[in-house]
Amino acid sequence: MKQSITIGYVGTGARGQSILQECLAKMRDVNVKTVCDLSEERMQKAADILVSAGRPAPHMTTDYTEILSDPDIDAVFYMNGWENRAEMAAKTLYAGKYCAIEVGCSYDIAECWDLIRAYEETGVPLMMLENCCYGRREMMALRMVKEGLFGEVVHCDGGYMHNCRHVFLPDTAPEGKPLEVEPGVPNFRLESMEKRNFHFYPTHDFGPIAKVLTINRGNRMLTLSSFASKSRGMAAAIAGKDTSSPYHGMDIKCGDIIDTIITCANGETVHLRLDTTLPRPFYSRGFTVRGTKGMCTEDTRTVFLDGMAETMSANEPEFFEKYDHPLHREYAQSESRGGHGGIDWLVCRAFVEAVKRGENTPIDAYDTVSWMAIGPLSETSIAHGGAPVDVPDFTRGRWLHREPVTRGKYCLDEICDDLLTPIFADL
Amino acid sequence: MKQSITIGYVGTGARGQSILQECLAKMRDVNVKTVCDLSEERMQKAADILVSAGRPAPHMTTDYTEILSDPDIDAVFYMNGWENRAEMAAKTLYAGKYCAIEVGCSYDIAECWDLIRAYEETGVPLMMLENCCYGRREMMALRMVKEGLFGEVVHCDGGYMHNCRHVFLPDTAPEGKPLEVEPGVPNFRLESMEKRNFHFYPTHDFGPIAKVLTINRGNRMLTLSSFASKSRGMAAAIAGKDTSSPYHGMDIKCGDIIDTIITCANGETVHLRLDTTLPRPFYSRGFTVRGTKGMCTEDTRTVFLDGMAETMSANEPEFFEKYDHPLHREYAQSESRGGHGGIDWLVCRAFVEAVKRGENTPIDAYDTVSWMAIGPLSETSIAHGGAPVDVPDFTRGRWLHREPVTRGKYCLDEICDDLLTPIFADL
Repeated sequence: MKQSITIGYVGTGARGQSILQECLAKMRDVNVKTVCDLSEERMQKAADILVSAGRPAPHMTTDYTEILSDPDIDAVFYMNGWENRAEMAAKTLYAGKYCAIEVGCSYDIAECWDLIRAYEETGVPLMMLENCCYGRREMMALRMVKEGLFGEVVHCDGGYMHNCRHVFLPDTAPEGKPLEVEPGVPNFRLESMEKRNFHFYPTHDFGPIAKVLTINRGNRMLTLSSFASKSRGMAAAIAGKDTSSPYHGMDIKCGDIIDTIITCANGETVHLRLDTTLPRPFYSRGFTVRGTKGMCTEDTRTVFLDGMAETMSANEPEFFEKYDHPLHREYAQSESRGGHGGIDWLVCRAFVEAVKRGENTPIDAYDTVSWMAIGPLSETSIAHGGAPVDVPDFTRGRWLHREPVTRGKYCLDEICDDLLTPIFADL
Repeated sequence: MKQSITIGYVGTGARGQSILQECLAKMRDVNVKTVCDLSEERMQKAADILVSAGRPAPHMTTDYTEILSDPDIDAVFYMNGWENRAEMAAKTLYAGKYCAIEVGCSYDIAECWDLIRAYEETGVPLMMLENCCYGRREMMALRMVKEGLFGEVVHCDGGYMHNCRHVFLPDTAPEGKPLEVEPGVPNFRLESMEKRNFHFYPTHDFGPIAKVLTINRGNRMLTLSSFASKSRGMAAAIAGKDTSSPYHGMDIKCGDIIDTIITCANGETVHLRLDTTLPRPFYSRGFTVRGTKGMCTEDTRTVFLDGMAETMSANEPEFFEKYDHPLHREYAQSESRGGHGGIDWLVCRAFVEAVKRGENTPIDAYDTVSWMAIGPLSETSIAHGGAPVDVPDFTRGRWLHREPVTRGKYCLDEICDDLLTPIFADL
C-alpha cells in the first residue's frame, strides 16, 4: 500500500475549488502536483487554496495531457464540465492512471461504451465521485436492507428536487445570496436544458438506489421510460429579463418535472424525478426504499417497520441511533470535515484509499457508466412519447455473477466492519 | 326544483350500509324507497339503519330491475361490486333515472363506451361518487389554482397509498381491529389483484387532479403508461396461512407498487401511485399540485408560494384559514356529518342537489368514464412493458370547448359563490 498518492486535478471552477479546499488540500496523503483549467484566473485560485492550506504550490497547465504523461501522477480528478469529460477519462485510463469524475450524465451511449472499453482494455479503475452514495440516510438504509430489516425490497424512489432557478440564472438570485455560478459564465446544466429534454442529473438519486438494488452485481436495469412535463418554470424566470441579461430571450426545452421509471431484472421498479425549475419548499433527493417488512423515506424523515403504529413523525433520528452505518459512526467521532455533511470527504477518501491500496473503487466503471447512461436514455424515451427503451448491459452478462468489488469500509455492496485506515488518520 | 327525491339503493354491504347510515338516512329530502342486494341479511341491516333513523322501512328486493321500472324513483345508487355495475348503470340511464355509482375502475374500455352511449342517447346524468374531489385539501388547492396562486400548473401527483393487507385479508387483522370485510366474503379488490396486474383503484387519486387540470373541459389525457413492481407484499402476508384460511395458497398477480404516468393535451404530466400491500407509516393520497408560482403537497402537509423561505413545516393549516373552499367553510359551521371528514356527505349532497334541480352532476358521465378507464388502460400498458397507450377521448373532441356542467356550490370546475340550498338545510 502506498503511503501517499500524487494527483492531477482538472477543472478548478466553483466545484473544483470547493473539493480542493474542503477535502483534498486537507489530506496529508494526497499531493496535488498539477492543476489544469482553461482559465489562468481559476487555476490561480486553486493554487492559492493549496498554498493557504500549507501545501506546495501546484504546477499549472491548460493542457491536461501534460498530466497524463507525468509518471509521478497516480490518479486524475475531473471536476470540469461535461462536454469532453468522457473522452478525457478514457485517455486517463489508457495512460494507466486511476480516474475520478464528478457527477453528471453522459452525452450519449457511445461515450459510455468508450469508457467501458477503456476500462476493460486497461483494468484501471474509474470512479464517479457520487457523494450521495455516502449520505448518512442512504448508508443507514443500505445497512438496514443488508440486515433484512425491510424484508425483500420491491421499489425505490429518488429525485433531484431542488429549485435551481437562481443557480441556472444567477442574475435572478436575491441580493446577498452567494452565487454558485457567475452570470454569463457557461453553465453545463443550463446549456443542456436549453437544447435537450431529459433527466440531466440522474446520479444523486440513482446512485444510492443502484447500490440498494445490487445493480451490476446480481441485478441490472432492463428498461427505462421517461416523461417530461411542459417547460414553464424557467420561462417564467426569464420572461422579465431585458437585453442586458445573458439569459434574455433564452428558450428552455427541458420540462420542469421529468419522471423516469426503471424496471430491473429482479422485478423491482425505480421512480426518479428531476425537479429543478419550479418553486418547492425544500431540497430533497426523495430517497425511499420499500420492502415487504419496512421502508424509509426522506421527505418525511420517516422509517417504518411492519407492526409499528402508524406515524407521520420524523422518527429517523431514533433509527440513526441504532442503525447508523459504521462509516458514519466513525465520521461523527471526529470534527466534521468536507462539504455537504461529510459526503464529499467520504467519497474522496473512498477513491484515495482505493488508489493507495491498488484496488478497484467501490463505485466502479460499470456503476459509473450505467448511472451516466440514464441521461441520454431518458432523452430517447421522452422523444418517443415515453416509450420504454432498453438499458444496455454494460457488463455483458457478468452482472449475474459479479462479486462486490472491494471489501473495505467504503464498500457500498456489503457492510464491512474492516475499517482499514481511520477516516482522518492521515491528517 | 323538487323538494325531495325518491331513490333506489343497490348494494348493502359494508360501504352501502355506511353511506346509508352516515348520509342518506339523515337527509330529510331523500326517501329511500327500495333497497336491493343478493343477501337478505345485508338488506335487513340496511332496512334497520333506515328505521332506526326514523325513516320508513324500505321495500326489499334481490332484483334491481324492479327499481328501474318503478315510476316513483328518481335516482339509483349503486354501491355493489364492480362486476356488473357498468351494465346496471347503463340500464338505469335508459330507464330515465339519475345514476350514482361508487368509486372504482371499469373492467374494460368497451364498458366505458357503453356508458357513454347510454348517456348520450338518454341525456340522463351519471355521476361517480368520488368523495375525494370534495376533500378539504383538494378543494383548497382547486380554489388556489383557480385564483392563480400556483401560476400555471405543470404537474400533479396522486396516489392511493394505504396498507390494505388487513382489509384484503381480514383474517390477518390484529385482534380487536374492526373488519371492513368479513373473512371469506367476496372482495372485489382482492379478486382483481389475484388475476390482474393494474391500478385497480384510480379515482381517489385522479379525480381531484382531473378537476385541477380541467380534463374533459379544455384539456384531456393523451397517453398513459403504467409500471408494476414485483408482487411480494401479499405473498408475505399469505405465506403463513394454513388450509383453514380462505386465502391459503392464493397467488396475487398485482404488483405492490403500480406507478402510472399520464400525459395531457396541455402539456401537463400526472404521476399516480397504487401502494396498498406493503408496510407504510400513514395513509396518503399523495395529492400534489405543482405550478410556476407555487405548490401544495399532502405528504408533508405543506403549501409553498414562490418567495417564501424554505420550510419543511406542515404549514397547511395557515392556508386553510385563508383559502378554504367556500363549501368547507360552510361545512365547518355545522356539526360534522358523514364519513371520512365530510367528503361522503358532500359528494352525496352534490348528487342529490343535481337530481332535485334536474341539472347535470358536477362529476359527469365523461368524468366518470374517463377516470374508470385508467384501470384497464394501466393493465394494457403493464402487459406491454410500460408502453404508452392512447387514452380514448370519450368526448369525441368536445373537450376543446366544453363548459363547466354546473354552476352551483358543488361545482368542481369553478369556484361558485352561489351557495344554493345550505348543506344541512333539509334536516
